[in-house]
Parts: sequence; structure tokens; C-alpha cells
Amino acid sequence: MLKEDLNLPKALEEIARDVEPVLYDALAENASQEFQEVLLHPVKAGGKRIRPAVLMLSCEAAGGDPEAALNAAAAIELVHNYTLIIDDIIDHGEFRRGVPTLWKKYGLTMAILAAVHYREVVSELLLKSKNSVRLLSIVDSYIMRLVEGERLDVLFEQVGREDDPYIAEHRRISVSFDDYVDMVTRKTSSLYEASAMMGAVEAGAGENIIEAFRGFGLNLGVSFQIVDDLLDLFGSPSETGKQVGKDIVEHKLGNMLILKGLERMNGENKSFFLSVLRSRQASQEDLDKALSILARTGVKENAVREAWLFSEKAKSMLTVVPDSKAKRLLLDLADYVVYRSK
Amino acid sequence: MLKEDLNLPKALEEIARDVEPVLYDALAENASQEFQEVLLHPVKAGGKRIRPAVLMLSCEAAGGDPEAALNAAAAIELVHNYTLIIDDIIDHGEFRRGVPTLWKKYGLTMAILAAVHYREVVSELLLKSKNSVRLLSIVDSYIMRLVEGERLDVLFEQVGREDDPYIAEHRRISVSFDDYVDMVTRKTSSLYEASAMMGAVEAGAGENIIEAFRGFGLNLGVSFQIVDDLLDLFGSPSETGKQVGKDIVEHKLGNMLILKGLERMNGENKSFFLSVLRSRQASQEDLDKALSILARTGVKENAVREAWLFSEKAKSMLTVVPDSKAKRLLLDLADYVVYRSK
Repeated sequence: MLKEDLNLPKALEEIARDVEPVLYDALAENASQEFQEVLLHPVKAGGKRIRPAVLMLSCEAAGGDPEAALNAAAAIELVHNYTLIIDDIIDHGEFRRGVPTLWKKYGLTMAILAAVHYREVVSELLLKSKNSVRLLSIVDSYIMRLVEGERLDVLFEQVGREDDPYIAEHRRISVSFDDYVDMVTRKTSSLYEASAMMGAVEAGAGENIIEAFRGFGLNLGVSFQIVDDLLDLFGSPSETGKQVGKDIVEHKLGNMLILKGLERMNGENKSFFLSVLRSRQASQEDLDKALSILARTGVKENAVREAWLFSEKAKSMLTVVPDSKAKRLLLDLADYVVYRSK
Repeated sequence: MLKEDLNLPKALEEIARDVEPVLYDALAENASQEFQEVLLHPVKAGGKRIRPAVLMLSCEAAGGDPEAALNAAAAIELVHNYTLIIDDIIDHGEFRRGVPTLWKKYGLTMAILAAVHYREVVSELLLKSKNSVRLLSIVDSYIMRLVEGERLDVLFEQVGREDDPYIAEHRRISVSFDDYVDMVTRKTSSLYEASAMMGAVEAGAGENIIEAFRGFGLNLGVSFQIVDDLLDLFGSPSETGKQVGKDIVEHKLGNMLILKGLERMNGENKSFFLSVLRSRQASQEDLDKALSILARTGVKENAVREAWLFSEKAKSMLTVVPDSKAKRLLLDLADYVVYRSK
């Protein structure tokens, strides 16, 4: 039971403290000593643990006992880490949460094997629930959606991966805002939807309540991704633990600010920005200049507003859910997602 | 119900014909049109479909209706293909079943995303069974075993992957036959054990019968791998669809013939063989000479004998299972595994 005076940061901390041992034990349990070092690297690097928080709070807001949802909460955090391990391989990402990524530290082979192991630990944890069949089915379908989102994200890149005939052939030259939202609901909302739904399922909620939580997760996810796009370009690297402008370096049109910013540029600025976006090896100077052109389009304010709209929509989904401390924390979380700096 | 005059090749064909549409549909069902081409490539390339046959025949031999095990059979073939996609990435394998491997044809990104999708389709299929929780739990634990086997196989390589500090640090300089069997029971037996057990579970068999099938799968898997090791070195590439001596090129001490052959070599032959095994880029001439040195140790005959012993042990596990056409086909399969040429 959550204390009435608990604020969101404290609640996130408490949930992380409860979930982490479950997650560590599950990862280590079926692995040789020698492999554990590799397996624990990604989760030891930290993370905001927002998805398990959404799951636990959704469970309690839907009238359930969050204790019973601990395994599912650990599972969804592992799904998230599973997708990050893979994402870093695909995007050649070298740092995350301020430390080397798994493939960078232990090599591609061990990173792939660890990813496969993560996925099995997810099932192990979910099989412990009395709602295991439903939970597994949710996780299943949302991981498939996520794969499609990831695939689209890659196809939205404007250059690169030339040794990849499939990507060259299927690359999207123009991307609309609707295409972007469709990609993002797959790539990012999937795990928020799954988290919120799983919490409600563990609470034994009815289908209309589960559906309300799904809608909350869906919109929260879009909001989250828009802010991620913003932080990628204008965040503080000491807070995000990531390289500034990574999405430009990776030629991504699947970043809301790049997409909308380009619509607002013209003439020399637009050509210059596009040349940097398509450059195989942009200099720091060119990257900085591109970022300042982008900032001047006012797209930062536009992004905050869009994130806020999705966040408000997420909150509105929960009107069918009775008031409770847990529900209020979920509403706070929807605000936090918009105004976070990391 | 299997016809009395059905022989093993016909039975394998019939099972493949029944399982393949299930597997194709399941892969395509939750994927965009554009992604289906990628997803279907590995399964379209063919394969012996031995694991689904083990599953279906085990189900019938344990008194069940093999029709009810079709989804599980398709699932286990997809697990197998999932591991092959990953194996080819890890080992940089460019050809399999006579066609380019998935990463080679569509690039690393699409291959990894396809692998993730495969794993989810496996769960989807297993969730359709009334024994889904048990089946999912079997698949889970055996995939984790398989990961550990794959990890050991890589650590048994004698050179290479120098950009991989973890592998350099943990590499096994000496490997005993027991180490080899331990690695192989993880890497290869896992899916045979899972197949045989899942068939018995789908038949509603008791725990002692499920355990008998597990033992059958375990020993069949070791036999299968020893013959795979043999075919890698001395098979006909037109039959196997693989490059001859790939395990030497990949510096693998985790091949029974290389392991046992080295024990029987001495002097110049041994130094020469080791130099080829450890060579970063062996010439075809050196590879041929190494293979002929290996052949002269008599290790081929030794391997056939070991494979036969494991196969006999597999068969003996089924003595507790009553006679039936399906059981006799499983016994035939244990013989086929030893004497196959592809």
C-alpha cells in the first residue's frame, strides 16, 4: 500500500528497490557464474525503471496487490533491457547510461547470447504468475509490434547501411507525422501499453479497465518518445548519458524534431541541415551548426507541446479508474515524462 | 494415425508437409507484408525438419494424437531456425542449406529483428496448446541451456575474435571429451530433449514416460552432433550445403573429430594440424592436408562408433514405451541420425 505523502520520485525509487533484486536473481539463476558478469552489465548500469513503475502502479490503481505483480514488473524491465541490447547492436551505440553498451564491452557474440537469455528469463518470470498465459500473450504481441517499429525506424534513416541491400531498397524518402506516430506507437508505446495492461491483468480487472490502461500506456509512450527525441538533440549529456545529436549522426528522419524542423526550414539552412543529416561523417562543428538551425525553427517548443498533448490524452484514459494514491502517481508520471531532463 | 508400411523417409516427408503450412502462417500472420520476405527466407530454404518429427512421433508413441501437437511441432522447428539465424551471425556463416544465410542476404539488422520475431511466434504457437504453461517452460529452460552451449562452443575456439576481450580472457586451451559432451548436450541435445518431452506432454503422458522421452532426446542429440562434426569435415558439400572443414576454418576444438584426432597425432603432423587450426587464413591446400592427416588417425571410424553408442542409448531409453508404429519410427530415426549423409 502506497503512503499518502509519497511523491513520484520516492515512489519510483521504492519500486526500483523492490524490483531490482527480483530481476538480478532471475537473470543469474539459470546462468553459469562466468556468464553472469555479462548478463548483469546492462541492468547494473541503472535506468529509470519507469515501465515496472507503470506496471506496479497500474496494478494498484486497478485495485490489485502490487506485491503480486513484482515478477511481471521485473519481466517488463527485462524486456526493455532486451530491446536496448538489440537496439545498441543495430545502431552501433557505444554508450548507454554512461557506460559502454553490452556489445561494446563484451563483443557482439556475447551480447547476442545475453539478449537471447534475457528473453527466456522474461518467460520464466511471467510463468510464475497465475495469469501467465494472458501476460505471455501480451508480451508476445507487443514484442512483435516493437520489432516492426524498430524496422521502420531503421528504414526512416536517410543514408547509411549501404552494405544492406534490403534497407537500401525499402528506405522511406518521405515520412509524414502520421508515419512517425505509427512508428513510435510500435517502437516505444508497445512496452508502455504492455506494462499498463499487465498491471491491470494482475489486478484481475475487467476488460474495459484493462483497455483504459492500454490507452494510457499507448499515449504515454508517444509522449515519452517525443521527449526522448528532444533530449537526443538538446539534452545535457551529463544527464542523459548519451551523445548529443546521435539521431542526426544516425541519419534518422524518425525523430519528431528533425521531421518537423525540416518542414520549417528553407533555402540554405534546409540544404545545410539535410547535408549534415545525410553526411557519413559529420564534423562536430557541422553538427553544432545543424542543431542551432534546428533550434531556431522553434521545433523544441512544438515538441514539448505535442508531448504534453499525448500526455494529457494518456491521463484522460484513466477517468474510468477510481481515484487512489496509485492513480494520482500515474497522472504525475504522465507529467514527469514531459518535463524530465533525462 | 501412421500407416503400418510407412518408412522413415516417407514419414519425415509427411510430417514436414503437415508442419510447414502451420509454421509459414504463424511467421507471416503478425508481420507486415514487407517484412514477410525476410522472415520466410530461412524456413523456405528447407531443412530436415527432424525436431518436429521427433515431437510428433513422440506424441503418438506416448499414446497421444499427433494432430494436437502440430502447433508445438511448428514451434520447435522455429526455435531451431531461430538458433540457426543467431548461430550464423555469431559464426559469420555465409551459406546454409545451399543458400545465403539471413544476415548475409538481408544484413545484420534485419537478421536480428527477424530472430526476435521468430522467438515471439514460438510463444504464440505454444500458447495455443492446452499444455501451454508446461510447453513454454520446457522451451524456456532449454533455450537457456542452448545459449550456454553456444557460449562454450565459442570459448572452445582456439583463436580468432581478438576484438572480443571477454572471449580472449575466457578461452579454453584444453578441452576434454567430457567437456565436449557437456557442451554438446547443451548446444544440440537441448532441442531434441525439448522436442521429445513436448511430444510426450502433448500426449498427456505421465512423468516417468516424459522422462524416458527426455533421455531419448538427450542421447539422440549427442549422436546427431557427432555426425554433424563428421559431416563438417568429411561430408559432401553438395549434400550438406556447407563448406567442407568449416570447423577447422573456425578454429573449433568443440568438434569431436578434431578433439580426438589431435590426441592421436604427434610430431610434425600434430604441429601442422594445430598450425592450420590456429591459422587466421588457411589456404585450401593446407586445409586439405589437415583433413587428410585427420582422416589417417582413424577418428572417422571412432566418431561413427561414438555416435552409434549414443544412438543405442537413446533407443534403450524407450524400452518403457509400448511398441507402436510411431515408436519404431523413432528407433529408425536414431539409426538414421548415425548413417545420414546430410
